[in-house]
Amino acid sequence: MVEQSHYVNIPHRNLTDDAYIEILVALDATPEKLGALLADLHPADIADLIERLPRDHRRTVLANIPAEHLGDVVAELEEGVQEHVLQMLHPDDVKQVINDLESDDAADIAQVLEDIADDEDVDAEDLLDDHQQKKLLEFEPDTAGSLMQLEVAAALPTDRVEQVLAYMRSDAEDLPENPGTVFVVDKRRKLLGTMSINRLVKAPLKAKLEDVMRKTPLTVTPDQSSDDVVKVFEKYDIHNLAVVNKRGQLLGRITIDDILDTVMDDAAWRQSAAAGVDSSEDLFAPAVVTARSRLPWLVVNLGTAIAAAAVISLFEDSIAKLTTLAVLMPIIASSGGNATTQTQTVIIRGLATGSITRQNAWALFKKEFAAGNMTGFVIALLMAVGVWLVFGNPMLALVIAMATVANHAIAAFGGWVTPLVLKRYNYDPAISTGVITTTFTDVGGFFVFLGLATLMLL
Amino acid sequence: MVEQSHYVNIPHRNLTDDAYIEILVALDATPEKLGALLADLHPADIADLIERLPRDHRRTVLANIPAEHLGDVVAELEEGVQEHVLQMLHPDDVKQVINDLESDDAADIAQVLEDIADDEDVDAEDLLDDHQQKKLLEFEPDTAGSLMQLEVAAALPTDRVEQVLAYMRSDAEDLPENPGTVFVVDKRRKLLGTMSINRLVKAPLKAKLEDVMRKTPLTVTPDQSSDDVVKVFEKYDIHNLAVVNKRGQLLGRITIDDILDTVMDDAAWRQSAAAGVDSSEDLFAPAVVTARSRLPWLVVNLGTAIAAAAVISLFEDSIAKLTTLAVLMPIIASSGGNATTQTQTVIIRGLATGSITRQNAWALFKKEFAAGNMTGFVIALLMAVGVWLVFGNPMLALVIAMATVANHAIAAFGGWVTPLVLKRYNYDPAISTGVITTTFTDVGGFFVFLGLATLMLL
Repeated sequence: MVEQSHYVNIPHRNLTDDAYIEILVALDATPEKLGALLADLHPADIADLIERLPRDHRRTVLANIPAEHLGDVVAELEEGVQEHVLQMLHPDDVKQVINDLESDDAADIAQVLEDIADDEDVDAEDLLDDHQQKKLLEFEPDTAGSLMQLEVAAALPTDRVEQVLAYMRSDAEDLPENPGTVFVVDKRRKLLGTMSINRLVKAPLKAKLEDVMRKTPLTVTPDQSSDDVVKVFEKYDIHNLAVVNKRGQLLGRITIDDILDTVMDDAAWRQSAAAGVDSSEDLFAPAVVTARSRLPWLVVNLGTAIAAAAVISLFEDSIAKLTTLAVLMPIIASSGGNATTQTQTVIIRGLATGSITRQNAWALFKKEFAAGNMTGFVIALLMAVGVWLVFGNPMLALVIAMATVANHAIAAFGGWVTPLVLKRYNYDPAISTGVITTTFTDVGGFFVFLGLATLMLL
Repeated sequence: MVEQSHYVNIPHRNLTDDAYIEILVALDATPEKLGALLADLHPADIADLIERLPRDHRRTVLANIPAEHLGDVVAELEEGVQEHVLQMLHPDDVKQVINDLESDDAADIAQVLEDIADDEDVDAEDLLDDHQQKKLLEFEPDTAGSLMQLEVAAALPTDRVEQVLAYMRSDAEDLPENPGTVFVVDKRRKLLGTMSINRLVKAPLKAKLEDVMRKTPLTVTPDQSSDDVVKVFEKYDIHNLAVVNKRGQLLGRITIDDILDTVMDDAAWRQSAAAGVDSSEDLFAPAVVTARSRLPWLVVNLGTAIAAAAVISLFEDSIAKLTTLAVLMPIIASSGGNATTQTQTVIIRGLATGSITRQNAWALFKKEFAAGNMTGFVIALLMAVGVWLVFGNPMLALVIAMATVANHAIAAFGGWVTPLVLKRYNYDPAISTGVITTTFTDVGGFFVFLGLATLMLL
């Protein structure tokens, strides 16, 4: 008889608001109750709890986590919090955590430990027992290799379905907790096909794997980007993906739950990176650490503003004669900035999904330019009417309308060309497009507006 | 003998650049070759191809898709393109598409058909054969119900593992293609436990399900939000989630591949919505349709700029006396805007992940306010030095420094309070926070800067 999976007996209380408040109260008043409260909580919920707690409470919680769940809790933490927690743990506990985890999580944590150690002697390799696991450390972040786990269920093409099922039931040491897919390999581990557990249980017991397996398995190599891997999962609705070397030999697998985490982390990362914020940073990191990490982006963006200021300074005489120009400047800058944001959003997304290619990029420019000019005309008309009514100056109304139309054209061009060029030179367009396009519309918009005003009004 | 799953025989050529160009050439020169090229392509790749093609080529491709894959292709399309394609299909083909799909996809497409029909008589219900499927139409978008499929593998608690495995192999009509999990229910369909296929194949053959199943299954009700559902999948690393009614009876299940699609669509949607762009819009929709959908956001944002202009107009006399103020205005607005973007990004993300609660929001404000003031001081110092060097006016340098410090404080407050208030009143903070916080920093920044300048310099 195999044992019941430990999954059945995992505590399952969730971190509801009530549970959270109960724990907060215990933290302040009766820390001795904490152990019992945490023992009922699902490990993923303990991780959530730790993330929400200001730093001084975390040590108390940590000391009261049931030992058998410590590994799962640490693995579930967000990176910034994970670093903080690993620094507080006793080295023996750290060793236990690594031993309890699957290969990919163990390697990740060993790497984090090496990165945060003050001591030069701490080496991730020494923290891992297994030769294979040590190899996982060689893969770059954001590659298929970094997402891969070594635990796979593998079988020979001549194995019959009933043999494979018997092997599953044997609870063999090398079987992963959730095999998901049986990878069919030859004696040299070359991947020949795949057979999902779903199809395995439906297949005739006497059939050989080679007759029922999927013969053209999807694969990635460990150096492919995690973006590529995500696309394969999304497109083909698979749950397990084989990682093979250049000779087609099976190295490991990537599972869809890790992909889900990756996608959510990536979305947060891109959004944060576009604002110069580190998405993995602990919410309760010291303010000075946060401030330091945010400064570079603020300084870079200052460049845009200085460029805009330089353009304005060319027209100081005009502004002195007609201060209304200064009043209207933010309207020009804002409408151009918003229009370029719209175009760039579409282009960045199209590049991310792969819908934009060399072949259709020009057709897309024509479409975006047309749409940008249309919104430009409407906004220009609104502004002209407003300016005429408020300032009673029809020529000024004409100038602002012309500048707006021109700036929306600049916006469409900048929003289209910038992400394409960044992508061409292998920069992530999601991060730096905004700074560049805003420079286009600020500088261009002020120049056209103040220039036209100087020519036509003064 | 059961038949081999049709999955084994799905064409598998991927849409590489070569394949894409080959098809583009065929479209222009030899459309008769198209059928053969498409027959080799995986349905998900045909969907990709259609999305990339300008509209006039799509009809030709559509006419050449092998009939047995038309359903899969249509289901894989992005919503905007899907609408366009459904309008081009013959009603008989549409019927075939719906019949070929699983319940959730079939209901989605029936709904799209109802939405796009000019004809009032087209009713999604009439397009679906099955009584149960019709019920899927009742669920609101972005709820668990809308993500649910009806096809589930269910068994009784007294069934033995070997019986369940035999049932799987029987290829019974009601079995889903990928069962994933066996839901254990009583005779009234009340959910008692779950047993993943992974654990089923490892369990002793003679064991009763009630002895080996997970007894505290995670569940959602159909009216829960899709955000809630995503959190359950991410947190607990499950592949299948039971949907139950208020009495705990099993209605259907949600699968992780649909969740992966949802997460990716949501990330795109939030990012696009924050720029007033419709993420489901076809890249090659007519420019006028695009322009019309983007205008409202541009007009709303004009409000921010007009508010800023109104503040500036209060200080026109000061600007006339010292036009350098107009030159420096964009620098004030930009640094404040960037600082508030950083704080709001952190708060929006914390709210999305659930890390920010009533209990820790204030601690977070203190931290963000401190970090904002620190960056404010550094940026202010840089600006003051720059202004002193360029304009040789130490008092002006002092004024811009003071205004910058004040505006970073405003930025931290606005970036913290705005998403919290929006969330409190059930607006999605990811969408409208930016407009509001920029108003804070533009209006506040100009007022402080021009006000201080008027007091101290003039």
